[in-house]
Amino acid sequence: MALRLYTFWRSQAAYRVRIALAIKGLSYDSEYIDLLKGRQFDDAYARLNPGHAVPTLVDGDSPPLTESVAIIEYLEEMQPEPPLLPSDRRLRAHARAIAQMFVADTHPFIVPRVRKYLEKELGLDEAARTRWLRHWQETGARAVETVLSRDSRTGKFCVGDRPTLADLCLVPHFTSAMMLYDCDLGAFPTCRRIFDACMALDAFASTHPTKQPDYAPH
Amino acid sequence: MALRLYTFWRSQAAYRVRIALAIKGLSYDSEYIDLLKGRQFDDAYARLNPGHAVPTLVDGDSPPLTESVAIIEYLEEMQPEPPLLPSDRRLRAHARAIAQMFVADTHPFIVPRVRKYLEKELGLDEAARTRWLRHWQETGARAVETVLSRDSRTGKFCVGDRPTLADLCLVPHFTSAMMLYDCDLGAFPTCRRIFDACMALDAFASTHPTKQPDYAPH
Repeated sequence: MALRLYTFWRSQAAYRVRIALAIKGLSYDSEYIDLLKGRQFDDAYARLNPGHAVPTLVDGDSPPLTESVAIIEYLEEMQPEPPLLPSDRRLRAHARAIAQMFVADTHPFIVPRVRKYLEKELGLDEAARTRWLRHWQETGARAVETVLSRDSRTGKFCVGDRPTLADLCLVPHFTSAMMLYDCDLGAFPTCRRIFDACMALDAFASTHPTKQPDYAPH
Repeated sequence: MALRLYTFWRSQAAYRVRIALAIKGLSYDSEYIDLLKGRQFDDAYARLNPGHAVPTLVDGDSPPLTESVAIIEYLEEMQPEPPLLPSDRRLRAHARAIAQMFVADTHPFIVPRVRKYLEKELGLDEAARTRWLRHWQETGARAVETVLSRDSRTGKFCVGDRPTLADLCLVPHFTSAMMLYDCDLGAFPTCRRIFDACMALDAFASTHPTKQPDYAPH
């Protein structure tokens, strides 16, 4: 049965899942949910995803799948090849931990609902909002750089020499950071090297936000 | 080889892992990292966990494991019984998605470093900080309540009739919410029923923050 992905060009979480689908070679239909226009609150979409977030993946007639990490683990179990997690248990934990450093410790602070709260509820001006974004994005990236730069398990990619769940989170993080503020990738040399290695692969390049049909810079 | 857990009584993420270890019947030594005193920034601990967070799990002489979800997936692979994820792929994704609704969409907004930024960088008074905590904790809990209350897969616990990763995140969320502000569990009837079912189990009750040797209310 067909896969249908609810996505938005600028969403880090949707980009993670697009990369996973591309690496697995799985075809899917796309539905575009414009988070900047508040389409995630439309009744029809809220029924699929009560967290009002993208992505959502619908696989045939079963209940919708939400949360990027859960979706990627699902795809990994559905179609194990090529793998997005190493086979060794400790390496799997390492890849999942790096992924969570982005997903749970870094990305939450820049999602649209948080930026709206900063502006509407706290009355922060644009400069203060940008300081917030930059602070949390760089705090998270510095922690990941520290881990990757000194861990002997770091290879061409975050864990060894093939892309894993960790890289699926690293690339969207830096992609967003470069779109949102003047992020200097040079401050994160190991991350930058891995980012470049990923972007040389079609699965990462072809699913980039700027390659999406709903891409709408302003 | 021995397991050593770096934990803090008040940390939601550490509580998740303590429950997992208890359900699996795994014994471990504890090291207490007082986040309120900034011990997560001590050099020795920062070498184990460059994200300056708890928990960290050390399993013998291998590199430290970080990030609660990655640690719990590791324990699940190391000792599959009793399982913390259902065997069906779609149910596994559902349990992981509910877990991420807490871990990535709700919990990040109340960790100590964020509360410090709100106070020191944004100059928010205690009332505004409490509004922030309450807003994000209740937004997250409402989304989970919506999912659980209408999903036919909800059972005695979040997914079916045995505790999963989802419950390991639900209980610490509400435990923290009740400690941090005047959270009314009655507003989340499905979550409350599941919370009560979990707390009737020794694995959840015996690992509760108030049962920890480092518990220090103020």
